[in-house]
Amino acid sequence: MTDIKLNHLAIVVDDMEAALRFWRESLGLQQAGEIESVPAEAVDIAFLSLGDAHIELIQPTTDDSGVAKYLAKRGPGMHHLCLEVANLDAKLEELSARGYELINETPRGRDGRRYAFIHPSSTGGVLLELYEKI
Amino acid sequence: MTDIKLNHLAIVVDDMEAALRFWRESLGLQQAGEIESVPAEAVDIAFLSLGDAHIELIQPTTDDSGVAKYLAKRGPGMHHLCLEVANLDAKLEELSARGYELINETPRGRDGRRYAFIHPSSTGGVLLELYEKI
Repeated sequence: MTDIKLNHLAIVVDDMEAALRFWRESLGLQQAGEIESVPAEAVDIAFLSLGDAHIELIQPTTDDSGVAKYLAKRGPGMHHLCLEVANLDAKLEELSARGYELINETPRGRDGRRYAFIHPSSTGGVLLELYEKI
Repeated sequence: MTDIKLNHLAIVVDDMEAALRFWRESLGLQQAGEIESVPAEAVDIAFLSLGDAHIELIQPTTDDSGVAKYLAKRGPGMHHLCLEVANLDAKLEELSARGYELINETPRGRDGRRYAFIHPSSTGGVLLELYEKI
């Protein structure tokens, strides 16, 4: 076993109510909290519990954010994978030393957590968020 | 808590060795078993442990399979999400009754497990596999 575990899997949706009808009401996942507006990122988000981890539903609220452009280009679907690691700085240093492309060279942080994104070109096509509780 | 949990997250790759260099050697996930060839599906697969679940790396070995066409069209990245449920038949019946589109109306099965795929048009863009141990 490693110290790496799933934190969340983010899905971009174009219709939050329809997505909740599927994942929560029909499939039976439990919603954690309410739909939350994040104006700074121009998205509405909702979390569904999946064991200790979550599925995060993301709906853009404008047309010009990164996630809105992703939705326009690729359609709804899985957007990024977030894994929790024990030592974020060491992981980022290791990946950078091996030549992988970090979107955030320095972790971003808020609310007792720190995170950094790894570019899909380094992971085999997956936008990967590494996350650490602090 | 519901009885639904992550079984695996499948990632389509175009270079298995490069993908393993990232996810196993650099990020530090443990590989479960060896790279396995599945001629019937024209893919090579490898599993990485993620808690009780797995990340499944899939590389097409021909150009004309469904997954090869997906790779050619969309590039490498997250391909499908597999959730384990306690009663597959009841879930499928429920989803079908609500008008969602099942790719497999009747579960497929082998090796002590049964599974069925739900069409991305029903889930908000995610190819979803529902899985049951038997």
